[in-house]
Amino acid sequence: MPDKVLRMVRSEGAGPALRPVMLAIAGDSAAGKTTLTQGLVEALGADRCTSICVDDYHAFDREERRDLPFTPLHPDCNYLDIMEQHLQLLALGRPILKPVYEHATGTFTRPMYVEPKEFVIVEGLHPLSTKLARACFDVTVFLDPPEEIRRGWKVERDCAKRGYTPEQVLADLERREPESAAYIRPQRKYADIVARFAPIATRNDPPGTPLSAELMLRPTIQHPSLSTVLTDDNRTAMHLKILRDADGTPTDCLHVHGHASAEEARQLEKAIWAELDVDGGPPESLGRIGDIGRSEPLAISQLILLYHLLSAGTVDR
Amino acid sequence: MPDKVLRMVRSEGAGPALRPVMLAIAGDSAAGKTTLTQGLVEALGADRCTSICVDDYHAFDREERRDLPFTPLHPDCNYLDIMEQHLQLLALGRPILKPVYEHATGTFTRPMYVEPKEFVIVEGLHPLSTKLARACFDVTVFLDPPEEIRRGWKVERDCAKRGYTPEQVLADLERREPESAAYIRPQRKYADIVARFAPIATRNDPPGTPLSAELMLRPTIQHPSLSTVLTDDNRTAMHLKILRDADGTPTDCLHVHGHASAEEARQLEKAIWAELDVDGGPPESLGRIGDIGRSEPLAISQLILLYHLLSAGTVDR
Repeated sequence: MPDKVLRMVRSEGAGPALRPVMLAIAGDSAAGKTTLTQGLVEALGADRCTSICVDDYHAFDREERRDLPFTPLHPDCNYLDIMEQHLQLLALGRPILKPVYEHATGTFTRPMYVEPKEFVIVEGLHPLSTKLARACFDVTVFLDPPEEIRRGWKVERDCAKRGYTPEQVLADLERREPESAAYIRPQRKYADIVARFAPIATRNDPPGTPLSAELMLRPTIQHPSLSTVLTDDNRTAMHLKILRDADGTPTDCLHVHGHASAEEARQLEKAIWAELDVDGGPPESLGRIGDIGRSEPLAISQLILLYHLLSAGTVDR
Repeated sequence: MPDKVLRMVRSEGAGPALRPVMLAIAGDSAAGKTTLTQGLVEALGADRCTSICVDDYHAFDREERRDLPFTPLHPDCNYLDIMEQHLQLLALGRPILKPVYEHATGTFTRPMYVEPKEFVIVEGLHPLSTKLARACFDVTVFLDPPEEIRRGWKVERDCAKRGYTPEQVLADLERREPESAAYIRPQRKYADIVARFAPIATRNDPPGTPLSAELMLRPTIQHPSLSTVLTDDNRTAMHLKILRDADGTPTDCLHVHGHASAEEARQLEKAIWAELDVDGGPPESLGRIGDIGRSEPLAISQLILLYHLLSAGTVDR
């Protein structure tokens, strides 16, 4: 407690609020948002990062939702106006009193005083769903795993951490599908980066091989210049190609295969890192998935996000 | 639930937010803020009023406060920055997600979505404690009962509704006194109206006589022109005199005696009401104190506030 008080007293005299760098990680339930976020927080240091989940802006608890004609994916099941307000406040460097939804019990508990640090990472189902919300971010990501992969992740997590049975989770996924299609997946088009982690269908990698990453790097923000590094020499495990987005815009697409070796990945990581004017090499903590070990595709995806966070931070705001 | 949803859906299409009239009622614990507020809400109609208590912005629950060197009266025991934010949002006609502190248990529960209606009444310990907060209000009131009266009210209420014993309440009052002096009473100087309900020392009114009201009507806002009504004819039960405020500014002071008859009060009420361009007479519900009956001094105090709320509402905002 005294810590909290001291912090409050200190912040009063801190002068005008500093505007943080804001990153959105949007995606459906169990799309891997938290795994991605945790790696970034660890790489940047928890003392420089504020991470929040905007699913806390649910308007109804689990009990109330039973009588409602929609799931938490529906905009009307969330206080999106309050979410917008809070994102704006954070973007301006102001504190918020964030609601807290407890997934374990499906109820709302005591709200939390959140002050934006240097970097604010916002993950959730709806961070890109309104124009005002999108305007708050420097970088936006949409996680887009194949549905069968996501289904597996969701069953695993909801049974382990939220007290559901596999049958309940699968029934829930089915019930949510129309609203996923109507309200979650449309956010994909507003992301600067669309990340898809998936196995490669045409290969027979041994079990335990990490998923490959396919990163659509849209020209809405300036990405590290990968085309100078990804020459013909390292085309095996990683490659970059131009394709057309759904609306016809030319877009870079970076593939990092799950079988990429640490050495191959290291080369690309160093090249990305070198474009930033920071001391030391890329953080060691990238690419960690629970206790399973390291995934090079995840590490490189996180590094690209880190690049954007750190370079946005150096621009005069 | 469906009601809540419908309201949300409806409000989306409602166009630009309307700015409400904002009234602050500040004062120490058990100074009579809720009694005053309830009468106003009843008179205006609950469908036109939003009333909130800013003591919900406590930063610590009862348990945590045990280890802290200060009481809830201390600014550092409250998220006054969040209170300021929320007052600004309400003043702009925007909704807030208000924290909820439960006095019965001393804990924080699920926050509440609050949309400002035509009139917003904000009561609490600290609504006038910062410049930004004060700037949100059209009219500000400070309740200033004599300490022995307030002590009696606090013992009565805290024992009946908050589960304390009289000894605990009295010890608490003593512990709070330095912070009352430092942080609550200084708000008195920022109020447009200072209201003091008290018995008249020089009279021996029969038991059950309502408390008299002494209303300092400061020239910071334009009050109804009482001087034309309060002539020598009705000087017995009500009178108006000019005095100097602590800083020397001339200020009107209206006295309404507890023994004022309903007829006498009626005359003044009609005169105040006539200055407003509204249909019908003054609301019947004014002056009610619990089940005790009607107090003319309270009724007239509420009517003056009602006058300000209704006339502020007619000004182009």
